[in-house]
Amino acid sequence: MVFNVCHKTWHRIRFVVNYHRREECKLGIVNRSMQAAGVLAGMFSIFSPSKDSLDGLEIEKFMTEPVSNMEKLEKHRTNMQARMELLIMKIQADFCRALEAEEQDGSKFRIDRWLRKEGGGGVSCILEDGQVFEKAGVNISVVHGSLPTEAIKQMRARGKKLSEGGPLPFFATGISAVIHPRNPYVPTIHFNYRYFEVTNTDGSVEWWFGGGTDLTPYYLNESDAVHFHKELKTACDVNNKSYYPKFKKWCDDYFFIPHRGERRGIGGIFFDDLDEPNQEEAFQFANSCAEAVIPSYIPLVQKHKNDGYGYSERQWQLLRRGRYVEFNLVYDRGTKFGLLTPGARIESILMSLPLTAKWQYMHKPEPGSEEDKLMSVLREPKDWLKIEA
Amino acid sequence: MVFNVCHKTWHRIRFVVNYHRREECKLGIVNRSMQAAGVLAGMFSIFSPSKDSLDGLEIEKFMTEPVSNMEKLEKHRTNMQARMELLIMKIQADFCRALEAEEQDGSKFRIDRWLRKEGGGGVSCILEDGQVFEKAGVNISVVHGSLPTEAIKQMRARGKKLSEGGPLPFFATGISAVIHPRNPYVPTIHFNYRYFEVTNTDGSVEWWFGGGTDLTPYYLNESDAVHFHKELKTACDVNNKSYYPKFKKWCDDYFFIPHRGERRGIGGIFFDDLDEPNQEEAFQFANSCAEAVIPSYIPLVQKHKNDGYGYSERQWQLLRRGRYVEFNLVYDRGTKFGLLTPGARIESILMSLPLTAKWQYMHKPEPGSEEDKLMSVLREPKDWLKIEA
Repeated sequence: MVFNVCHKTWHRIRFVVNYHRREECKLGIVNRSMQAAGVLAGMFSIFSPSKDSLDGLEIEKFMTEPVSNMEKLEKHRTNMQARMELLIMKIQADFCRALEAEEQDGSKFRIDRWLRKEGGGGVSCILEDGQVFEKAGVNISVVHGSLPTEAIKQMRARGKKLSEGGPLPFFATGISAVIHPRNPYVPTIHFNYRYFEVTNTDGSVEWWFGGGTDLTPYYLNESDAVHFHKELKTACDVNNKSYYPKFKKWCDDYFFIPHRGERRGIGGIFFDDLDEPNQEEAFQFANSCAEAVIPSYIPLVQKHKNDGYGYSERQWQLLRRGRYVEFNLVYDRGTKFGLLTPGARIESILMSLPLTAKWQYMHKPEPGSEEDKLMSVLREPKDWLKIEA
Repeated sequence: MVFNVCHKTWHRIRFVVNYHRREECKLGIVNRSMQAAGVLAGMFSIFSPSKDSLDGLEIEKFMTEPVSNMEKLEKHRTNMQARMELLIMKIQADFCRALEAEEQDGSKFRIDRWLRKEGGGGVSCILEDGQVFEKAGVNISVVHGSLPTEAIKQMRARGKKLSEGGPLPFFATGISAVIHPRNPYVPTIHFNYRYFEVTNTDGSVEWWFGGGTDLTPYYLNESDAVHFHKELKTACDVNNKSYYPKFKKWCDDYFFIPHRGERRGIGGIFFDDLDEPNQEEAFQFANSCAEAVIPSYIPLVQKHKNDGYGYSERQWQLLRRGRYVEFNLVYDRGTKFGLLTPGARIESILMSLPLTAKWQYMHKPEPGSEEDKLMSVLREPKDWLKIEA
């Protein structure tokens, strides 16, 4: 497989587009319209098929130029860093396009490609105030640099074999998305798939994958929950039958808000520190989970995006979004890691926060109400697929 | 000075009120209407004056019965624990009544008295969705119990001479208030005054006072800022002329949001671990600062509560409230301590969060706009009184 797009080509594209749309494009920011422009299509050619998991990868469909130099990605394409970057670029593009297709008012993602002076960068795609999506953020990042001592300490605490002290060189790449729809009957989805490498003082490299997909409905629809979990289970099963039950429980445990005694949502899967059985299979697992996002979520958007709702359903959604903010700012490890990382792009980290959230003192749903039904599964997670041994 | 109200009398009052307003009152929750009821006035008599800082304390004006047993408060009234509890009950009542007087639609505070099974309790007063105040929370708490090891570690880290390990017995009492007005031209105020005791394994007691008052405007009005800081300086100066500049700087440093590179507001004063020159003077200082809240803030409410504003001012206020949430959930030590305290009353801790907050990706005020002017003082704190030596 050969990349037919080199870094220079991307620059030529950007130049061409900038020439025509000077006002909309600023240095380092690539607008969606660039990719949409038909004139670009001919500049790329599709990869020749191979046995690779990135088979048939159409790089011209990426939201924009990858963070890493294309020549480097081409040269090192057997390297896990490059493969993961290509995978998340593809997942980002596929997911953003699937979301845009649901918008009824032609809302498109804004695309910001950014570089980090400490090393690496990212591509943040955001759609705000759409008709279907109130706030949708799909972010990829490819960062490397020096891992702060505090972060090393946290990793050692969870069993990573890292040299004491620090800082240590690290590489991290991942995709992270949070979609907050406008209609309270369409659930919020979050997913994140990431690959991490840390180089010890003796030169040995610790690597691992992490990630997960989880759903936060505002109203409980059991068949939606079953559909969602079934899709995730299918993605897990092709890799290892033990993964779904294990990672489903991990998800319920992770997205817990201790001070509220409730979970953020109805779960999904969550895993971290995955470094077995080998790098290839761990990658294939992350790949199949990431590919399961669209079939697990888009049907729920289509099913509910035109459901009728009123003021009280909207208020309830906003209160639950307040809890989302509480979880993300107080407990979420990814957010904390982001806020600790020097030179991190804060706007990309906090893209996960909803457009609007509410906090009302002592709000309690009426017993037996639809709101109350949701609360009971947030307090006591359910085994949606009844697969517990 | 003698308390003429005993615990039994409070219970009788509650019984009387419950008899008439059964539906509105639940066990442990005392409704405002109780105090308002004229029938109660005759049940109390005013303390005889003395040289005490709590001179002329009118206990019948408290929002409700204090957390501690009244007989105990009476018996130990020379004790700092009791004096501080009486002070904060008074401050709470005065401030709540001053806020209610600004409401144009007759909005009143809801009053929740709560007990904590681990020891102590509190009184939370909240006014939500008023015409002038969108959310106003004034909370007092009087808690004792066992200080978690994690909290001891944090206190040792900032120099407290506490026995290693833990847990250790502690007593903490304080008042904490956050007022989020509806009109974007009325600033948000926060204040907190607290007294802390920890008993070491050898029986020695470490005690200290902490607190502060700070302002978070949505639009900068220099004369408001000067008025506010001047009132705080006056309160500081009667105790120690070095306090205002020192605690003003501490406030600017404390209410910093590192990931945004900006302060939460235009500051005020902040201090902690104050255990000098002696307990009496430290108490008098906390007392005069707490008494300065009304004159520093209420004139600003009166001045701006009827100012005209539109959609864009409201949106800006909501975005700034998002930053308020970020500071409180990610950095605020009081909130963190609360979330860590077993059996803490979460609704009282998170009363500080605004009714509504927004997060908009990459929002940046127009250069030179009123919003931008605010941002520049949040990035570079100003010496409002030009008193730096």
